[in-house]
Amino acid sequence: MNVIDHVRDMAAAGLHSNVRILSSLFLTMSNNNPELFSPAQKYQLLVYHADAIFHDKEYRNAACKYSMALQQKKVLSKTSKVRTSTGGASTNIQAQSLPSEIEVKYKIAECYTILKLDKDAIAVLDGIPSRQRTPKINMMLANLYRKAGQERSAVTSYKEVLRQCPLALDAIIGLLSLSVKGAEVASMTMDVIQSIPNLDWLSVWIKAYAFIHAGDNQREWMSMAT
Amino acid sequence: MNVIDHVRDMAAAGLHSNVRILSSLFLTMSNNNPELFSPAQKYQLLVYHADAIFHDKEYRNAACKYSMALQQKKVLSKTSKVRTSTGGASTNIQAQSLPSEIEVKYKIAECYTILKLDKDAIAVLDGIPSRQRTPKINMMLANLYRKAGQERSAVTSYKEVLRQCPLALDAIIGLLSLSVKGAEVASMTMDVIQSIPNLDWLSVWIKAYAFIHAGDNQREWMSMAT
Repeated sequence: MNVIDHVRDMAAAGLHSNVRILSSLFLTMSNNNPELFSPAQKYQLLVYHADAIFHDKEYRNAACKYSMALQQKKVLSKTSKVRTSTGGASTNIQAQSLPSEIEVKYKIAECYTILKLDKDAIAVLDGIPSRQRTPKINMMLANLYRKAGQERSAVTSYKEVLRQCPLALDAIIGLLSLSVKGAEVASMTMDVIQSIPNLDWLSVWIKAYAFIHAGDNQREWMSMAT
Repeated sequence: MNVIDHVRDMAAAGLHSNVRILSSLFLTMSNNNPELFSPAQKYQLLVYHADAIFHDKEYRNAACKYSMALQQKKVLSKTSKVRTSTGGASTNIQAQSLPSEIEVKYKIAECYTILKLDKDAIAVLDGIPSRQRTPKINMMLANLYRKAGQERSAVTSYKEVLRQCPLALDAIIGLLSLSVKGAEVASMTMDVIQSIPNLDWLSVWIKAYAFIHAGDNQREWMSMAT
């Protein structure tokens, strides 16, 4: 068990204040002596350090440390490509146990959203290829797009959430608020409604929300007409 | 896959806003028709619902829902005892996959700490038997005891953290601030310092902090003498 394993275990155990102090000391040591930790270890330290800062609700500071982690990941990817070409399967095993780069990007976007830097949050999430987007990334992106008035992109992202999680009712409300037809939304949840007993109320629930938002449009139309 | 599995998967995927709406609807249904969900399912719904509320930073509301979950867990323990005596091994399997009661108590204490209800937080954590306390529970308890002036209990809890995680530097600072001797604290981390290379600075770091706090005491003593 090396020192990084100790930091990782403490992070997993929820000892955030301890992780913050220890990782901070290791990062200072690493800056003074770059040979001390491998690029992969430095990436891990930066992520655990940023997680501890995020837990302390210092979102600006956390976003900064997560961004440093991403920079470090780039260095790491370059060096591991060189290593892979010369021959180690061990590099892949190591890469698998590293904190996910996608998760780091999501955390940065979460910091930006809390700091009300919506454009920056969209920019970070937009940089994640569609097929790598998890449901929570699509959900955050959909909400940000809707807030920014990019309705078509918002609809696409909400639909993607629903495709992966057919009972994501907040995504359903999102779609209905963007004037997607109740029948279309209902059709996307039909399979799960039919496969689970006692869920028939859900189609009525969708109809009700569709009616609320249709009401909005109707009122809007009436106010325009008068 | 039943509806509770859907809620659990969405919670694990980080779709908090969706979990909040769906679990809230299911809990209303369950109140209107108590036969709809088993006691175990209702416990799960309450925990997932409370987690979503906690994520929304509504700590008072979350603490209330977590407490309802604990009440539900008591009902569940009673009924499962009856069932076990009549015969099902399946009850145990089910119990294993349920959200941890200890974790729920920790969450309640976290809510109370954020709400500055320190006495209530201590009361909840004190109710967890010592051998079931995880490092983060001991750490939170130690900080709360120290703040409340219960120094002996604080020392015991910090030492417990250090026993489980010998590199918990915040626990070390806690002990030194409570006038535990530097040499005693250092002896508790000696094994890990000796087993890991490049960690010899840690004993100097402990000495430095011991000196800082000894300085505090000396100043205090001097101000009392004058």
